[in-house]
Amino acid sequence: MNTALKLSYLGTAYHGWQRQKNGLTVQQLVEEAIEKTCGIKTSVSGCGRTDAGVHAEGYVANFKGDCRIPMDRLPHALNARLPGDIVIHESHIVPEDFDARFSCLAKEYTYRVHNSPTRNPFLTDRAYFYPQRLDEKAMAEAAAHFVGVHDFSAVRSLGTPVRSPVREIYYLDVERRGDMIDIRVCANGFLYNMVRAISGTLVFVGCGKIPPGNIPKILLSKDREQGGPTAPACGLYLTALDYNMENININVKPIRR
Amino acid sequence: MNTALKLSYLGTAYHGWQRQKNGLTVQQLVEEAIEKTCGIKTSVSGCGRTDAGVHAEGYVANFKGDCRIPMDRLPHALNARLPGDIVIHESHIVPEDFDARFSCLAKEYTYRVHNSPTRNPFLTDRAYFYPQRLDEKAMAEAAAHFVGVHDFSAVRSLGTPVRSPVREIYYLDVERRGDMIDIRVCANGFLYNMVRAISGTLVFVGCGKIPPGNIPKILLSKDREQGGPTAPACGLYLTALDYNMENININVKPIRR
Repeated sequence: MNTALKLSYLGTAYHGWQRQKNGLTVQQLVEEAIEKTCGIKTSVSGCGRTDAGVHAEGYVANFKGDCRIPMDRLPHALNARLPGDIVIHESHIVPEDFDARFSCLAKEYTYRVHNSPTRNPFLTDRAYFYPQRLDEKAMAEAAAHFVGVHDFSAVRSLGTPVRSPVREIYYLDVERRGDMIDIRVCANGFLYNMVRAISGTLVFVGCGKIPPGNIPKILLSKDREQGGPTAPACGLYLTALDYNMENININVKPIRR
Repeated sequence: MNTALKLSYLGTAYHGWQRQKNGLTVQQLVEEAIEKTCGIKTSVSGCGRTDAGVHAEGYVANFKGDCRIPMDRLPHALNARLPGDIVIHESHIVPEDFDARFSCLAKEYTYRVHNSPTRNPFLTDRAYFYPQRLDEKAMAEAAAHFVGVHDFSAVRSLGTPVRSPVREIYYLDVERRGDMIDIRVCANGFLYNMVRAISGTLVFVGCGKIPPGNIPKILLSKDREQGGPTAPACGLYLTALDYNMENININVKPIRR
């Protein structure tokens, strides 16, 4: 039996999704809740790692094992064992070959910049506070250059080795609503810290440190030093996932393709 | 020299506004920031106590003493000494007789109920999560009975003795926007825990435990046992203040009277 969970979490208190020896993670707490609720000691596979402090509005995970709790009651039963900042919204029996990570066709992240002369205490740990006025039109112009199939070596941190630094970005939108600038990016996969490096680069464009037209040159350089800094984790949200919806009966926000 | 500050804070980490021997308070941190920034060891007078975990979107405080930092730069200088969950927005020189507490003509609090079958991790410590569906029309009907001059003994906790339990509520609105129910109340003053006791009583009305028409009887009883429970602190926000705006050049959200 293979069970998929849809959850959301506020990442502030956690060292990311993936289990670690030192530091509390979302995976550990979800696995402990499943063990206490269903009596199954299992490893939960998540749709992706998230860094410490990164949030998820729509996260999908799956686990194998026979759970006797009815699917429509499982979220409530798990939530009773979880802290308030991790919430299970849905659970579904899925085909045995479904894997939250490998079955995922695309992911959307949203990076939130609070662009205001003054802090907002209610956005502490929930957006990147940037007091200098940013030009969102220049940021959008720069963003367009990232869309498509590229070697994204210039906007990643070195971490776990990957086979290829080539990914396809389907869209990368910059939208201002008052003091908030949302950078929304969807791709078939992301390199380590790629969204935060792109966001830091767009912020440098927004304050005039990098001309929007320099992005193609930066990408071609494959040199991380050419772009802007890696923006802090607190502004990053996993916001949507794309699975083959005919097989997977889990309600994730649709991603435009 | 008398200086007024307009500030906002996320109350989650604090034991309320007022200085305490045991526990960190907003007043203590603001006083320490003033001492470090202006070299003035002073007592800051706040517009009201707030309980542990209560938030303020618009709070006013004042302090006496000569501060050599220009008024337009004081907020920024103080913010550099304050944690991100306390933010000074404005500072103004005010008449010597201005007192943030005693000059205040009316206060508006908003109590936020997250009324949804499922928790939202992003509302942890920021709203009262109430999964059972609430009838906001019944709550609004009950709310109307609180408006006006009443003895509010039935909806307060016993704390510091006060001269009179009579206050005037100018308005008490109940508004649903999706899963959020905002209870907005403005009065010339509030008894200890009064907004939380009114909110808990309205929640009991919303889930059918108290008929809306019972409110006048509950108020007349002056018996705290007749109403609903005191709703938790995390849902409470100080949202607006009313001062005599001709003398006090501080920008607070206007309150309709």
